[in-house]
Amino acid sequence: MATYTLTEMSPEVRNRVAGELQPLLFDLIALGLQGKQAHWNVVGPLFQSVHAQLDQIVDDSREWADDVAERIVTIGVPASGQAADVAQQSSLDPLPEGTIADKQAISFICDRVGMIATRARRTADSLGDLDLGSQDMVLEILRGLEKHLWMLRAQQT
Amino acid sequence: MATYTLTEMSPEVRNRVAGELQPLLFDLIALGLQGKQAHWNVVGPLFQSVHAQLDQIVDDSREWADDVAERIVTIGVPASGQAADVAQQSSLDPLPEGTIADKQAISFICDRVGMIATRARRTADSLGDLDLGSQDMVLEILRGLEKHLWMLRAQQT
Amino acid sequence: MATYTLTEMSPEVRNRVAGELQPLLFDLIALGLQGKQAHWNVVGPLFQSVHAQLDQIVDDSREWADDVAERIVTIGVPASGQAADVAQQSSLDPLPEGTIADKQAISFICDRVGMIATRARRTADSLGDLDLGSQDMVLEILRGLEKHLWMLRAQQT
Amino acid sequence: MATYTLTEMSPEVRNRVAGELQPLLFDLIALGLQGKQAHWNVVGPLFQSVHAQLDQIVDDSREWADDVAERIVTIGVPASGQAADVAQQSSLDPLPEGTIADKQAISFICDRVGMIATRARRTADSLGDLDLGSQDMVLEILRGLEKHLWMLRAQQT
Amino acid sequence: MATYTLTEMSPEVRNRVAGELQPLLFDLIALGLQGKQAHWNVVGPLFQSVHAQLDQIVDDSREWADDVAERIVTIGVPASGQAADVAQQSSLDPLPEGTIADKQAISFICDRVGMIATRARRTADSLGDLDLGSQDMVLEILRGLEKHLWMLRAQQT
Amino acid sequence: MATYTLTEMSPEVRNRVAGELQPLLFDLIALGLQGKQAHWNVVGPLFQSVHAQLDQIVDDSREWADDVAERIVTIGVPASGQAADVAQQSSLDPLPEGTIADKQAISFICDRVGMIATRARRTADSLGDLDLGSQDMVLEILRGLEKHLWMLRAQQT
Amino acid sequence: MATYTLTEMSPEVRNRVAGELQPLLFDLIALGLQGKQAHWNVVGPLFQSVHAQLDQIVDDSREWADDVAERIVTIGVPASGQAADVAQQSSLDPLPEGTIADKQAISFICDRVGMIATRARRTADSLGDLDLGSQDMVLEILRGLEKHLWMLRAQQT
Amino acid sequence: MATYTLTEMSPEVRNRVAGELQPLLFDLIALGLQGKQAHWNVVGPLFQSVHAQLDQIVDDSREWADDVAERIVTIGVPASGQAADVAQQSSLDPLPEGTIADKQAISFICDRVGMIATRARRTADSLGDLDLGSQDMVLEILRGLEKHLWMLRAQQT
Amino acid sequence: MATYTLTEMSPEVRNRVAGELQPLLFDLIALGLQGKQAHWNVVGPLFQSVHAQLDQIVDDSREWADDVAERIVTIGVPASGQAADVAQQSSLDPLPEGTIADKQAISFICDRVGMIATRARRTADSLGDLDLGSQDMVLEILRGLEKHLWMLRAQQT
Amino acid sequence: MATYTLTEMSPEVRNRVAGELQPLLFDLIALGLQGKQAHWNVVGPLFQSVHAQLDQIVDDSREWADDVAERIVTIGVPASGQAADVAQQSSLDPLPEGTIADKQAISFICDRVGMIATRARRTADSLGDLDLGSQDMVLEILRGLEKHLWMLRAQQT
Amino acid sequence: MATYTLTEMSPEVRNRVAGELQPLLFDLIALGLQGKQAHWNVVGPLFQSVHAQLDQIVDDSREWADDVAERIVTIGVPASGQAADVAQQSSLDPLPEGTIADKQAISFICDRVGMIATRARRTADSLGDLDLGSQDMVLEILRGLEKHLWMLRAQQT
Amino acid sequence: MATYTLTEMSPEVRNRVAGELQPLLFDLIALGLQGKQAHWNVVGPLFQSVHAQLDQIVDDSREWADDVAERIVTIGVPASGQAADVAQQSSLDPLPEGTIADKQAISFICDRVGMIATRARRTADSLGDLDLGSQDMVLEILRGLEKHLWMLRAQQT
Repeated sequence: MATYTLTEMSPEVRNRVAGELQPLLFDLIALGLQGKQAHWNVVGPLFQSVHAQLDQIVDDSREWADDVAERIVTIGVPASGQAADVAQQSSLDPLPEGTIADKQAISFICDRVGMIATRARRTADSLGDLDLGSQDMVLEILRGLEKHLWMLRAQQT
Repeated sequence: MATYTLTEMSPEVRNRVAGELQPLLFDLIALGLQGKQAHWNVVGPLFQSVHAQLDQIVDDSREWADDVAERIVTIGVPASGQAADVAQQSSLDPLPEGTIADKQAISFICDRVGMIATRARRTADSLGDLDLGSQDMVLEILRGLEKHLWMLRAQQT
Repeated sequence: MATYTLTEMSPEVRNRVAGELQPLLFDLIALGLQGKQAHWNVVGPLFQSVHAQLDQIVDDSREWADDVAERIVTIGVPASGQAADVAQQSSLDPLPEGTIADKQAISFICDRVGMIATRARRTADSLGDLDLGSQDMVLEILRGLEKHLWMLRAQQT
Repeated sequence: MATYTLTEMSPEVRNRVAGELQPLLFDLIALGLQGKQAHWNVVGPLFQSVHAQLDQIVDDSREWADDVAERIVTIGVPASGQAADVAQQSSLDPLPEGTIADKQAISFICDRVGMIATRARRTADSLGDLDLGSQDMVLEILRGLEKHLWMLRAQQT
Repeated sequence: MATYTLTEMSPEVRNRVAGELQPLLFDLIALGLQGKQAHWNVVGPLFQSVHAQLDQIVDDSREWADDVAERIVTIGVPASGQAADVAQQSSLDPLPEGTIADKQAISFICDRVGMIATRARRTADSLGDLDLGSQDMVLEILRGLEKHLWMLRAQQT
Repeated sequence: MATYTLTEMSPEVRNRVAGELQPLLFDLIALGLQGKQAHWNVVGPLFQSVHAQLDQIVDDSREWADDVAERIVTIGVPASGQAADVAQQSSLDPLPEGTIADKQAISFICDRVGMIATRARRTADSLGDLDLGSQDMVLEILRGLEKHLWMLRAQQT
Repeated sequence: MATYTLTEMSPEVRNRVAGELQPLLFDLIALGLQGKQAHWNVVGPLFQSVHAQLDQIVDDSREWADDVAERIVTIGVPASGQAADVAQQSSLDPLPEGTIADKQAISFICDRVGMIATRARRTADSLGDLDLGSQDMVLEILRGLEKHLWMLRAQQT
Repeated sequence: MATYTLTEMSPEVRNRVAGELQPLLFDLIALGLQGKQAHWNVVGPLFQSVHAQLDQIVDDSREWADDVAERIVTIGVPASGQAADVAQQSSLDPLPEGTIADKQAISFICDRVGMIATRARRTADSLGDLDLGSQDMVLEILRGLEKHLWMLRAQQT
Repeated sequence: MATYTLTEMSPEVRNRVAGELQPLLFDLIALGLQGKQAHWNVVGPLFQSVHAQLDQIVDDSREWADDVAERIVTIGVPASGQAADVAQQSSLDPLPEGTIADKQAISFICDRVGMIATRARRTADSLGDLDLGSQDMVLEILRGLEKHLWMLRAQQT
Repeated sequence: MATYTLTEMSPEVRNRVAGELQPLLFDLIALGLQGKQAHWNVVGPLFQSVHAQLDQIVDDSREWADDVAERIVTIGVPASGQAADVAQQSSLDPLPEGTIADKQAISFICDRVGMIATRARRTADSLGDLDLGSQDMVLEILRGLEKHLWMLRAQQT
Repeated sequence: MATYTLTEMSPEVRNRVAGELQPLLFDLIALGLQGKQAHWNVVGPLFQSVHAQLDQIVDDSREWADDVAERIVTIGVPASGQAADVAQQSSLDPLPEGTIADKQAISFICDRVGMIATRARRTADSLGDLDLGSQDMVLEILRGLEKHLWMLRAQQT
Repeated sequence: MATYTLTEMSPEVRNRVAGELQPLLFDLIALGLQGKQAHWNVVGPLFQSVHAQLDQIVDDSREWADDVAERIVTIGVPASGQAADVAQQSSLDPLPEGTIADKQAISFICDRVGMIATRARRTADSLGDLDLGSQDMVLEILRGLEKHLWMLRAQQT
């Protein structure tokens, strides 16, 4: 368990923590952009509730991305979140272009939230030996992602 | 001057309007991402005020992007705003990676806001003959961009 | 382009502006009443979201009707909005009496919003040569109507 | 005194309750429309306070109409509130077209509020033997109407 | 009609009033618990709107239960609302354990709200000869229950 | 049961209704003044909670007095609430001058609230044959008074 | 100028301070009651604005009375504010019973506010040698009374 | 129609735009000062409503002046708004010193709002060929001025 | 330490996590019901503060129960919270029926909060090897329970 | 020390009090206008914080000017605050036209606030013998001016 | 009476004013810390109300300390408020360590508030000849302290 | 890992947990006092932003100190936070007396926040084996301290 203060953190630990958080940042930014993409292009009888639900996911993604990025710079490493970097390094498959049927939108976003949650859980585990403060933050994000996951899955049952 | 209703809009006009708005959407999304990039990585004695000012620009960019995207789908054309598309099609030069000095951050973002404002003004002119409703929306965004431009430039005088 | 001040507006121009706005007022009042009619009598599995969406359309219709009526009296012409006048002069077909299935409600109101938007667009064009202030107001209402139109249509795709 | 549950209510009672409430609904909608008509066209030294007072009456009328209409559909009968039906079936005399002097506006609306209050009192009495829940709602509306009546009359003393 | 003050209320009347209200309290608490049970376990395409609607029913049930319980102690009789008492004395059939499909959830809760409304109507009638204050409170709860009933039934039409 | 509209109310009924409400108005004003008297002069270990509870009773008394007085003028009879009239015609015994021990304050105010509640219950009964709107208002006040009564008594048990 | 702390204040000074404040308390309570009396019974074309203005005077009177009474008990002397004491010891002439014409209401209340302001100014002067804290409070009340006085007089010019 | 971006705006256009906006700024500041002058010195039976209405005009004038001034500096020209400049360059005749009767105050301010509205309409027309963003802002101000004009005139009818 | 994602969680782990959380859910629901039971039936000089404190405990219990239940369904297991299940499976002894003296109420609820806190601490320990997200949630609830425990105990010292 | 009530104030005292307050009113209005002038035209790296700080000074100046002007008319003397009078009679030197560097802006406004504070202190002293209510108001304004002075000076140290 | 402006204040006066205010600052900071100490460690049946009352005293102490400290620096003298200085120079006796019984807590804090009030009264007297602005601020604090003193003493009667 | 409930916690563990938290409490109180000291005495061109930033640090310090102190008493040990104890036992070096230049203030407070964060990280590690609830609270405080640290350091880069 980490016993180093932030300022005493060795360059190696510093890089490993940032190396855990930066991929999560890319994925959260991508989720925010894809959530908006679906929010705009969704069609179908469930338009109203899907349109609103997607915006809540976007709001959470943006707030979590801000938390993660500010934790990275707090650790002492610059954060990266511009479009080209997100496009190349996020692990999320892009959504198809054009209109998206309501149930399809739920399915697409559910897959992506599930994928980020899976990785965030691994990130949380890894951080336990590196930086408890960062782990604590990721656990809160994980709980939020999994709650969205439940509500997305419940609609597909 | 356009005399067609939205539903009567010819496919050609429809595509020309969307063709005016979609590039603005890419640029506004890019501005939001770059504004956050600078918000996180800025350093220097003016950190506090630059950090806060950038967040206001990000908030406006996100709201304007939402307006533009929803106008595009209202016109009857899907909107596009995912990371790879933004990366390839936005006309904004990316910010350099890493920390950014406070005055440098103001200068970088000022350049980009100025570039978007220049294009938005041309977009507004073009839309005058196609769709007055879209023109009206772009003019409001233009005034907002130019107001940010003034405040960014005033700091560099 | 109009170069007359409000007080200098000739009786002829005054009547032409009011002649453009008064029909829009009748239609907006009718839309508010029909929106409530459907809000009360809608049935079906989508009841909750349709019921709520219709109330938002009613709220906007009432606010826009207030704006249009107060613009008419500002121009110097009395405004008219009582039930018999609305019944006779609004161009909206009445809704059928009795309960309305949820998808049917969306379809009915979508038709009426589309019809008002079509006319509002023509009104905006006509006002461009008569009174820029009135045109500016109608363009804002038009954008709002078209946004509702998009969301109503998206549910029928 | 009614001992039937809502679901057990006999078709006859159901129709008699709706038969009491529907006329009140027509009158409240008409009051809302006439209140706005006067709100827009009033002139005179008391313009400011009359203009504001009429809007409060309109707000209450709309809220009460919503309550009555939703009670009718709760009873199991469709509610009716479109312009032509209101025009034909409301018992309120229409206001004269054109501008209305401030004291005249108070007098006109006072007459109409008084007429609705008189009928609502009879409706409340009749409902006492049919449906206590509906009676309770009408009594609240009655008290509100009578309070407006007092304030309208007090200005004419 | 009761002419006794609260303090002068005879032990017999006191017990009869409490005897009317306590069963309603058990049912309202049970409704709150069952509403939450369905709120958590509902699945299906309508998840979002059913999930939200159930929470509104739970909020109302809890507020009404508080009103009824505090009226009972005001009458001078202790109120009872613990789990075993509710389980034994509420007349509501329990919901099946496990996940519940969205339309099924609406149907289940609709039955229970209907059953409580039926009884509340009888309770209101009985209280008319015992305690007008208690009757007035029950009539307000009845109107609220019947409004939920309308919205639940409308979704099943 | 009253079948007269407010405007049709016979002078005799009008006076009987006002004759029921005016004494309640005197007592509610007196309760507000005595509640403040005790609020200022209370002492003892329970000062904090008694001081706060008395202010809530004063707030309710003032609001109820306003409702009753405005109902009286709505009925068409002037309302009376000046100090000398309250002093002579309220049935409340004055509080002793000087400091009041906390438990004593609860006891004194409890007696007075109980006395007003007893009379309000009789007033409500009498109004049932005269004016249902006034009765409805008094029943709401009665429930509020009895709720305060419960909380005052509970502290003395 | 007083150099005694509150606890060191001699019995004589204590009584003189309370002797200055208690009459102001009686007058402020009387003003609150008379303001309500006029608020209820006012009639005439200016009803709306006079009715609202009187309520603001009542709100201020009540708040100032609370300040003065709590200052008296802070000084260590019980405060007195029940109806009989106010009736006997306030220097305000009672309003005539019954309806009051709008301009008459302004005139009556203006006289009474003027009379209290005159006395409060003398009270403030007297307190300057006894207790600066009490003087400071009375000066704030005085400024508020005089501001009401201006607005009441301006309507009579 | 202007096709220049803000930064590309030629010095000549820049000066013509500022030359249109600066006189409007002087007049709006003068209106704010005169509105306050009348707000303070008005007398008469309508004092309450005129006093309040004038403050709304002042609030709008101040907000519009801020918009116009910030648009001028956005254009790249310093804005001017000190007392001596306003006194010399505003086209508004000063109000007479001393108290102003209520109807006189309405008449005076109505004249001045009408004069500014007349000029703002001409300004809006001129800006159409110079800078659409500035025109859009002036049209919004114009609509606001004309709405105040209606309400001021309605009181004089 | 768990390295499985939510979706990859083995059925065994899934059941063990739910097996830890479901008993906590029963206890929190029971605490909410018992807190209300005491809130209604408490008597004694400390009524006011105990009555208010119990409601805060009820509010927290309800919110925590919602969090735990939604975590259970997020894990993929239905949650259970109806009256009979709570009655049989909660480990809390029921409160005695009837009125409860104030200090007794504090003592009873303190015992129950203490018992739940003891178990929640063990639950948190067990979850550390199963699911860090669930553990994090239980730790927050634990801190809240222990804070209530401190305040309940402090009153008994 | 003044012992006259407002209404008893001799014409001579009345004029002396107004003669103390009117110059303060001119200076506060001038400060509000100059504060806005600098708010619009400031440039430099500290633009953001200076721009915001100046707006706070403007807000306070406007509120204080309103207080002073309403005190003058309360005294019974008309207040004067139009542009030409402010230009001629305010003792503040005008700001130079055109853009103002950030530190220069602080320095300019600091000088003017200091000058007004100096005079306000003398005004407060003079009023002590004329009207304690006016003195009390000026002392509050003085404290506010001196607090701004501190913050302006602290930036120049 | 001081006739010097803040900037003209002689070094001697400046030091005497700061010499009056700095001890008050130490005492107010000490009161805030002791209030929290008692807030945390209080026990007994009155825990709830004492715990809440102490927090109000702490909130006021902190706000007053801020006012006094900012007045000192406004005068032109640095303010001092760190722990060691407070410990050495505050005149308040420290509270005993460990838990404090509820009535004991009231007694301890009452003594300290009384002591500060006594000194603040003397400070106010002294400042009357030095700086009226500072005196005005201290009088407001004094009234607040004495109001707390009343409520603390009332509990011990 | 701790398996004891709060009540079962052995005296030894209890003392070790309190022994970890009490030093953090002293440091957080000292940080709050020093933050205010710098907030009052800071000077320089960055005054505005440093003054505001320091107040945010003070607000957080006070809230965190309250959390830590209440956790200590929850554990069952009295908390200590009076001035002399803080002065002797906090590990923070005092700030120099007198005015502090803006960049110096940032540097001083940055050092102190860094020192507390370093210790809080060690405290969090130690608590992992003693009390997970306390560790969870300290981790949240740590993240907050480190975020302030980032923003303070960023200004010095």
